Amino acid sequence: MKQIPVAVLGATGSVGQRFISLLDGHPWFKVVALAASDRSVGQVFSKACRWVLAEPMPGWARDMVIVPATPGSMDTKIVFSALPADLAVDLEPQFAKAGFAVCSNASSHRRAEDVPLLLPEINADHIALVREQRKLRGWNGCITTNPNCTSTGLTVALKALDESFEVKKVFAVSLQALSGAGYPGVPSMDINDNVIPYIGGEEDKVEWEPRKMLGKLNNNQIQLADMKFSAHTNRVAVIDGHTVCVSVEFSQPVTPGQAIQAMSDFQAHAAARDLPSAPKPVIVVRDEADRPQPRLDRYTGKGMTTVVGRVRPDPLFHLKFVVLSHNTIRGAAGGSIYNAELLVQEGLL
Amino acid sequence: MKQIPVAVLGATGSVGQRFISLLDGHPWFKVVALAASDRSVGQVFSKACRWVLAEPMPGWARDMVIVPATPGSMDTKIVFSALPADLAVDLEPQFAKAGFAVCSNASSHRRAEDVPLLLPEINADHIALVREQRKLRGWNGCITTNPNCTSTGLTVALKALDESFEVKKVFAVSLQALSGAGYPGVPSMDINDNVIPYIGGEEDKVEWEPRKMLGKLNNNQIQLADMKFSAHTNRVAVIDGHTVCVSVEFSQPVTPGQAIQAMSDFQAHAAARDLPSAPKPVIVVRDEADRPQPRLDRYTGKGMTTVVGRVRPDPLFHLKFVVLSHNTIRGAAGGSIYNAELLVQEGLL
Amino acid sequence: MKQIPVAVLGATGSVGQRFISLLDGHPWFKVVALAASDRSVGQVFSKACRWVLAEPMPGWARDMVIVPATPGSMDTKIVFSALPADLAVDLEPQFAKAGFAVCSNASSHRRAEDVPLLLPEINADHIALVREQRKLRGWNGCITTNPNCTSTGLTVALKALDESFEVKKVFAVSLQALSGAGYPGVPSMDINDNVIPYIGGEEDKVEWEPRKMLGKLNNNQIQLADMKFSAHTNRVAVIDGHTVCVSVEFSQPVTPGQAIQAMSDFQAHAAARDLPSAPKPVIVVRDEADRPQPRLDRYTGKGMTTVVGRVRPDPLFHLKFVVLSHNTIRGAAGGSIYNAELLVQEGLL
Amino acid sequence: MKQIPVAVLGATGSVGQRFISLLDGHPWFKVVALAASDRSVGQVFSKACRWVLAEPMPGWARDMVIVPATPGSMDTKIVFSALPADLAVDLEPQFAKAGFAVCSNASSHRRAEDVPLLLPEINADHIALVREQRKLRGWNGCITTNPNCTSTGLTVALKALDESFEVKKVFAVSLQALSGAGYPGVPSMDINDNVIPYIGGEEDKVEWEPRKMLGKLNNNQIQLADMKFSAHTNRVAVIDGHTVCVSVEFSQPVTPGQAIQAMSDFQAHAAARDLPSAPKPVIVVRDEADRPQPRLDRYTGKGMTTVVGRVRPDPLFHLKFVVLSHNTIRGAAGGSIYNAELLVQEGLL
Repeated sequence: MKQIPVAVLGATGSVGQRFISLLDGHPWFKVVALAASDRSVGQVFSKACRWVLAEPMPGWARDMVIVPATPGSMDTKIVFSALPADLAVDLEPQFAKAGFAVCSNASSHRRAEDVPLLLPEINADHIALVREQRKLRGWNGCITTNPNCTSTGLTVALKALDESFEVKKVFAVSLQALSGAGYPGVPSMDINDNVIPYIGGEEDKVEWEPRKMLGKLNNNQIQLADMKFSAHTNRVAVIDGHTVCVSVEFSQPVTPGQAIQAMSDFQAHAAARDLPSAPKPVIVVRDEADRPQPRLDRYTGKGMTTVVGRVRPDPLFHLKFVVLSHNTIRGAAGGSIYNAELLVQEGLL
Repeated sequence: MKQIPVAVLGATGSVGQRFISLLDGHPWFKVVALAASDRSVGQVFSKACRWVLAEPMPGWARDMVIVPATPGSMDTKIVFSALPADLAVDLEPQFAKAGFAVCSNASSHRRAEDVPLLLPEINADHIALVREQRKLRGWNGCITTNPNCTSTGLTVALKALDESFEVKKVFAVSLQALSGAGYPGVPSMDINDNVIPYIGGEEDKVEWEPRKMLGKLNNNQIQLADMKFSAHTNRVAVIDGHTVCVSVEFSQPVTPGQAIQAMSDFQAHAAARDLPSAPKPVIVVRDEADRPQPRLDRYTGKGMTTVVGRVRPDPLFHLKFVVLSHNTIRGAAGGSIYNAELLVQEGLL
Repeated sequence: MKQIPVAVLGATGSVGQRFISLLDGHPWFKVVALAASDRSVGQVFSKACRWVLAEPMPGWARDMVIVPATPGSMDTKIVFSALPADLAVDLEPQFAKAGFAVCSNASSHRRAEDVPLLLPEINADHIALVREQRKLRGWNGCITTNPNCTSTGLTVALKALDESFEVKKVFAVSLQALSGAGYPGVPSMDINDNVIPYIGGEEDKVEWEPRKMLGKLNNNQIQLADMKFSAHTNRVAVIDGHTVCVSVEFSQPVTPGQAIQAMSDFQAHAAARDLPSAPKPVIVVRDEADRPQPRLDRYTGKGMTTVVGRVRPDPLFHLKFVVLSHNTIRGAAGGSIYNAELLVQEGLL
Repeated sequence: MKQIPVAVLGATGSVGQRFISLLDGHPWFKVVALAASDRSVGQVFSKACRWVLAEPMPGWARDMVIVPATPGSMDTKIVFSALPADLAVDLEPQFAKAGFAVCSNASSHRRAEDVPLLLPEINADHIALVREQRKLRGWNGCITTNPNCTSTGLTVALKALDESFEVKKVFAVSLQALSGAGYPGVPSMDINDNVIPYIGGEEDKVEWEPRKMLGKLNNNQIQLADMKFSAHTNRVAVIDGHTVCVSVEFSQPVTPGQAIQAMSDFQAHAAARDLPSAPKPVIVVRDEADRPQPRLDRYTGKGMTTVVGRVRPDPLFHLKFVVLSHNTIRGAAGGSIYNAELLVQEGLL
């Protein structure tokens, strides 16, 4: 199979770096362009970028010259967007209009009715919105999005439960990693020996995005899931891996055993099951008293698996549990790549 | 006023050290005995103890010789207990029987019907149980207890709200400091770049203790408050200061403004208002988007004040907010000392 | 005594905040103006400043309106400068020319031959350079400086040794705190679970500044001390407190006992001994195997004392030891304030 | 090739876990026995061990039943020892006498004249001591050792330099990772927001072990290298990876360029170059101003490569630089495995 040329927008940031790292050796995609802001354009990547990943910078990226984040600067089918939301809002549609499939990690277009918000293992069928999007907007390209990093693991776990039982109410309190704030991101003076009980805009996303992803697609429209969410989001001194404490009320009582079974048995949507980035397995349920933990569990399934633990009765709702997901792999770059694979598979490029 | 001689049981541990630090220069109490386990007995305190507080060890403590934790080893009116729960269960009653007022930080006797579980600023009247306790058990001494460190700030905030409105349901998710686990406590390999979403026995305490403290005393019996709690407890890489994310349902809607007013205006119980360790003020409500934070706010009111912030509507219940309390001051040693002051004030010594 | 009006330049930064905190309740000085960059001018301090200290912002500072950092904006005798070096280079002379005594923490003028580089406890006599400076430059005001935070504790310890013995060669390897980099300073992604073995410009300062401070003043000129230094400087995940591993060669062998004696006995220069910020004592030598440690020892002597430990023979030079000093108190704001006190005491205002 | 059966002694500790992780999929060795202390014997590994590595526990290890650490409990050619030094001193000779090749990470026998202290890439020829050891002690088995984790990277770098130039004096100041202290190891209360400037026994090892490894083997005797070392060792809040600041004096001046060349060009000893665990390359010299850093560079060459940076002139000696090495891979388990491979290769099993 000939490799599909792809580009990364916002390549020098922390999510951009994760795209580059995950695309290193990808069986289908080959990075042929790296785009970043004006002050980096023209420099080689290794000079323009302060690499923050423990995985080394791939050799092929070192000497690539940064190009502007404009459709005319690159000749690819797919662009992965790690742009900040304020830039993505205008730039991503320009790319889509110019014929590129934009697989975006930015929040700018997640709420648009004709833009799929995808976790392929749970809602691969929502990809069909792309056809609607093209029809409505007259684009050859398209925009697909992946959710906010905290919504990611939470929504995967809820899908497994909602499929077997009916989820009605969800309390979610996050303990989020530093890499989610990008680079330079959180000053060390703010987080060492500390917790920051606030992340701008995050709670709104966690209370809304799962409802779209868990919603049904009818007549090219997503009907938001009939659930209510309450979220508290916190930043803690962890490099990678978002932990979420969750309490769930169902339409009727569910036991921990039933929930563990449902999550352990959960299979990815058929269309998304065998893609290169498909989580294997989708969910791991740990039975130790004190797991999941970000340092120990974030790389489960190469960082694509959702890890759940401490499933137990809740005195107010029905069940409590803990969800862990790698925020820059499953919750960001890995998610966008998985979306791109789905586009390819579905013949939507 | 002549100073009252006091002793500290479990003096070498992290809560024991906090007792010693807080009793340094106390206007009413003078430490005359330090007790610890057999392997420390006979050593001077400065050799027996690995001091972990940033505040220096008081000079008078350095050369005190450790005595056994037995009633016969000391001649004091009051003993402060920082004993582990498995030892406190038998030892504390021995002291009470021998005529000592035991002001305990241990969990062993908190649930006994005739033992007051005190936060004097909110339930100083519960001290009356001491008379019942003496009558029932034939003791000259007594046992008073302070709650678990995570229950502490949470319950103070809830009291201020419950007094004005009626609290019905409470979700509480904690991000707890390392000092709460004692010393050596949490291994650094377990918590650096990590979160541990489990603290043994803690969730049960947080779901039960506030109900006793918020309960009414009738005919020498505490009627547990009619509220339901759900708690998730987590350990994070913070030295001191427990942060709790709270969602509350009332008997009817309450606005953030009303709640802020109620908490800001809250006054300590009259009997406890002017004691040396009384928090001044009882509650501080911060209006910044990202406060309270443990590193910045834990020493508010010398570590005795409960700090609240981010009071906002909750999509599922009525309100969400964040509570911070210094776990080894208000939530442990400072709380026991405050209880002892109340005993003195009420003539119960 | 009537209080002397003072201003803080660069008031919103982390050293500026430390100035404000240390000047709260100062017996001689009263802050009447806070200056910062254009984007803060006109705002009240509590809005313009992201406060990073665990000590709360003093009440009087909250509502002070930020003024520009120009001589015309304030009416004080003394200005404390927490300006960045690139601004201090021009601004501080403007203030000095306009008649202000500038007590600066910036590095810009430390190497000027007529500017004293002061640690009053060891070289208070160097203050005499101020007269020379005024004569040469025609200023009514003056500039005095305190050294780089890593040089500070190192130089105090070396002075005590050099006075009794003769220091010839010094190896110094630092483990420096985050607050030394200001705010936002070091990104958390760079330092959590990490060490950064590089701090721009720092090694040059540590290899040169002690030689000026340990030099002799002859005919209004400082003769640099005849010693050689080699420094490695590192950033570590500590909030406050710089630790320095030191190996020293003397003109002849010195035993650990002799060195401990010399450091423990060291008295501050007579002119500086009774000033409000004088360290009491100047040096503490700890005898535990594993001290000093930043979290436990940085507040010794209110953060003004130099703490030394692990004094032992060195296989290559004569002695090895560890020095700890609070980098934003003794090593920055506290040092500048101490310098200002010396100016007052010497009648040089 | 048929796999050689091996055992791990001290399998449940942090170095034991690293052995298991590194031996997973090893081309030559197959783990057939895991031994630990009495309280673990009889349990399956997954229950007996609190796994602390981010890499998941290999599936084959989960259900292995722990056996006693005695020669009679296992039937293997090689035992890897992660025993504590006080147990290793007697147990390792028992195994060697019983015919096992003991590849030890313990310090107990490193200084014995007939026990090779090996870093195969630099002194593979020292393996010849094994024959002398067998002759002297009448053993069929043998003991080989790898150095202390801090000596490891330091000695590799020095070898590359000593081969081209002549190293005379070495200052080495370490910033050591938490995993080097085992598990539970360093309490979090001791190291968060802190540095511990002391590691028991470590400085002696760093000042002596390199001299043996850099020594010449003549007539079955190691002649210690004629160099002098001074070491300061510190613990910092890093999970894995020891950083060492080094200053070196040579017999004559060496420029940074010459040193960089010598280290970059350094080739592993021919006998050790193609072994499965051979570092590839032996040394990487980084040219960024602020590298190596433990979080970013510790996995270079799968954790077996020594990473050097900041090579620059030293005002007192000739050169300064920074060395980084993964302390539980190259500096512990990986080193012992590399030694075992050398034994196999040299036909010494």
